[in-house]
Amino acid sequence: MNDKQRNFLWAVALIFSCIFCNKLQAQSDQQTIEKIVNEVMMHSNAYSNLRQLCKDVGPRLSGSANAAKAIVYTREMLKAAGADTVYLQPCKVTWWERGKPEQGIAYIKNEQPLKLQITALGNTVATPSTGINASVIEVQGMEQLQQLGRDKIAGKIVFFNIPMNPTYISTFRAYGESGIGRRSGPAQAAKFGAKAVIVRSLASNTDPYPHTGVTQYNDSFPKIAAVAISTAQAEKLSSLIKEGKLSSVFLKTNCIMHEPADSYNVIGELKGSVYPDEIISVGGHLDSWDLAEGAQDDGAGCVQSIEVIRSIKQTIGRPKRTVRAVMFMNEENGTGGGRAYAQNQFGGKYIFAMESDAGGFTPRGFSFEAGPAMLAKLQSWQPLFEPYGISKFEEGHGGTDISPLKQGGTVLCGLIPDSQRYFDVHHAATDVFENVSKRELDLGAANMSALIWLVSEYGL
Amino acid sequence: MNDKQRNFLWAVALIFSCIFCNKLQAQSDQQTIEKIVNEVMMHSNAYSNLRQLCKDVGPRLSGSANAAKAIVYTREMLKAAGADTVYLQPCKVTWWERGKPEQGIAYIKNEQPLKLQITALGNTVATPSTGINASVIEVQGMEQLQQLGRDKIAGKIVFFNIPMNPTYISTFRAYGESGIGRRSGPAQAAKFGAKAVIVRSLASNTDPYPHTGVTQYNDSFPKIAAVAISTAQAEKLSSLIKEGKLSSVFLKTNCIMHEPADSYNVIGELKGSVYPDEIISVGGHLDSWDLAEGAQDDGAGCVQSIEVIRSIKQTIGRPKRTVRAVMFMNEENGTGGGRAYAQNQFGGKYIFAMESDAGGFTPRGFSFEAGPAMLAKLQSWQPLFEPYGISKFEEGHGGTDISPLKQGGTVLCGLIPDSQRYFDVHHAATDVFENVSKRELDLGAANMSALIWLVSEYGL
Repeated sequence: MNDKQRNFLWAVALIFSCIFCNKLQAQSDQQTIEKIVNEVMMHSNAYSNLRQLCKDVGPRLSGSANAAKAIVYTREMLKAAGADTVYLQPCKVTWWERGKPEQGIAYIKNEQPLKLQITALGNTVATPSTGINASVIEVQGMEQLQQLGRDKIAGKIVFFNIPMNPTYISTFRAYGESGIGRRSGPAQAAKFGAKAVIVRSLASNTDPYPHTGVTQYNDSFPKIAAVAISTAQAEKLSSLIKEGKLSSVFLKTNCIMHEPADSYNVIGELKGSVYPDEIISVGGHLDSWDLAEGAQDDGAGCVQSIEVIRSIKQTIGRPKRTVRAVMFMNEENGTGGGRAYAQNQFGGKYIFAMESDAGGFTPRGFSFEAGPAMLAKLQSWQPLFEPYGISKFEEGHGGTDISPLKQGGTVLCGLIPDSQRYFDVHHAATDVFENVSKRELDLGAANMSALIWLVSEYGL
Repeated sequence: MNDKQRNFLWAVALIFSCIFCNKLQAQSDQQTIEKIVNEVMMHSNAYSNLRQLCKDVGPRLSGSANAAKAIVYTREMLKAAGADTVYLQPCKVTWWERGKPEQGIAYIKNEQPLKLQITALGNTVATPSTGINASVIEVQGMEQLQQLGRDKIAGKIVFFNIPMNPTYISTFRAYGESGIGRRSGPAQAAKFGAKAVIVRSLASNTDPYPHTGVTQYNDSFPKIAAVAISTAQAEKLSSLIKEGKLSSVFLKTNCIMHEPADSYNVIGELKGSVYPDEIISVGGHLDSWDLAEGAQDDGAGCVQSIEVIRSIKQTIGRPKRTVRAVMFMNEENGTGGGRAYAQNQFGGKYIFAMESDAGGFTPRGFSFEAGPAMLAKLQSWQPLFEPYGISKFEEGHGGTDISPLKQGGTVLCGLIPDSQRYFDVHHAATDVFENVSKRELDLGAANMSALIWLVSEYGL
């Protein structure tokens, strides 16, 4: 055998041993993931923690006493999960209150007045203390609003009746598209002199519950009162208008916007054993709307994130890189918590941030905000998740709270749960513990734990 | 150009035109499927039909007055859906009644007796009219039962405490494995002289509801009474036994097995325009257990099948091959309906039979009982379903009612919905309309309609 032959044989041996090692590595990763998933499916505390957050704390809008209580409760949950350090990270949050319940009445020609199922939109101003009584003009979108113009709109209540498109298989796509009325309807209508705004609730189905959510005023125009009406009554209101039977609508809301308040993100971590300065986070938001228990939005994401800490501690012990669970405050109406976290007061480099804020339903995949090469690397892990029902590893939204981290180069990741039931409960009185499935919640936590472990083991 | 060159060019042209035609065909199929799916997502009657079946009819065990009422209701639904022919197909069904509610009491040393949450298993005999009071022996499986033998078992109540394995991602896998206690526990225990049997309910989670289901006696041994106990109380009973605190359990059941009764399958069809003798069926079972409304099991499959008729009629008009929706009677405790259908009294050739009997949850795929070549052909259609959340086209179970068709060479197909919540409600008082999601139900119906249309268009 000459040198050339010898080198060739060595090269062949090296290639084969690489293939063999890779295969062994993949097998070993699959086994570790199975261990983590089984730990969650057998011993998860996510569901009992969620029960506590929903039933012992309840609604927890930023600045409220319940939000403060939720901070105390989740700090204890993180300690119980085995976090080696638990921080309360100060942040300034929007402090808005609904005040006394809203009143809405539709006055109908030759019929009894109809009591309206309404809820003030988040961050809106109150009506005058005597309320507003005005005729109503219905629009299906912003173009129509502009075509109507000031002549037709001034002095009226504008009714944005934009249903969610039922043919979109992802309900988030329909929410994004139809949500324009809630997000910028009040600002746009004010521009044309409207007195107030009613938006059709962003719900997938016809139901009797008003679904709230935040709106964004435009500082160049007056701030006018705005409410959401249940989808069932949006249909009713629309018929009354079409039939020429609606005389006017009376609205009274009693909202108060206070000065920003002091609050906290709650953070618990497992310090990395090899690269403690590389920080991997997984989170949800701790605040919720005031109408319900914030079970799916986003108690689910919080307790899943706590479960990631517990399950990795139980199965791996100490991860190679620091793994941190973050309960963000103020996602719903100000994102004060997310912005505070991005300031990175505790040091280290934020390499990967995951958020679960689309409900604790059966997980279908993960979406990533990352460059093409990084995305390809992450996608190479997808086969490890197939046994656990995850088929999507795709480019897409990370999460509202973690989005400020993007400019620092952190890879962002969002859990994609099945979306069919989310907008039945989203921002409405129906978002309660009873509408969460234990197995769906746990399966989400299991897949999250597995991916967080992979990143903690191999880095990015 | 010589002949050889000319032939070569023709061949190339032919190949390209085939590729081009295939591509056009796939595009056109995708458009038709989109039309069908949109029709269902926008105008489905499945949810309102299910409400009627659950609320206006209710529980509908074979032989009951409600089962007869369900036949009348679904016949009307099929007519309203646009079926051109609606048949009532006579069949003989098991007619078993629970009789008066069961009584179960655990006598505990130095404590108050505990009332047990129990339900007689389907098709079981009653206890003697004075009930049975006996000590209890707990087993985790059949091997343990055999090891204990007659000495330890005779005269006792055997308690099969076999939890569903929470680490199986498909809950049906766990149901199949742990279900041995319910399916054959009473027969096996009777062999060793047991007086009665208690089985741990087949539920994924710890809940206070007993989940019933059928058991199968062995004619060589006595028929003994058998009940299911809630998972919560199965845990309790097991602790009492381990702590040596359980004195005895009293059971009284009042079941009656009548002679088989006359009943019907309800069938509605759209006659094929080109190949009317090739029959494609889609079905669910109309009977349900008596403890609840049979919403997920299997009202969902029935109303989805009716929606297949409606949506194909609305979008395609008349399919090339005959499409038939079949509401089978007696799936739960006798399969009389399925056997009658397999006798094919109405003529034609059964080429394809689909069943939806795993709940109206978000659809994840289809399973097929077919040879390898046929399976490959079916799998070539899978990409058409990806936009609608379907990733699985795999070998697997078709359905209980359609299984007698297999020996005649019919290709069988089962809808695979997400399985995480099914065993929260299965065969228990919780299987009610309120636990069905409209969008999940419709998305199942939409995918079913699309696949049924493809088979009706291209045959097999």
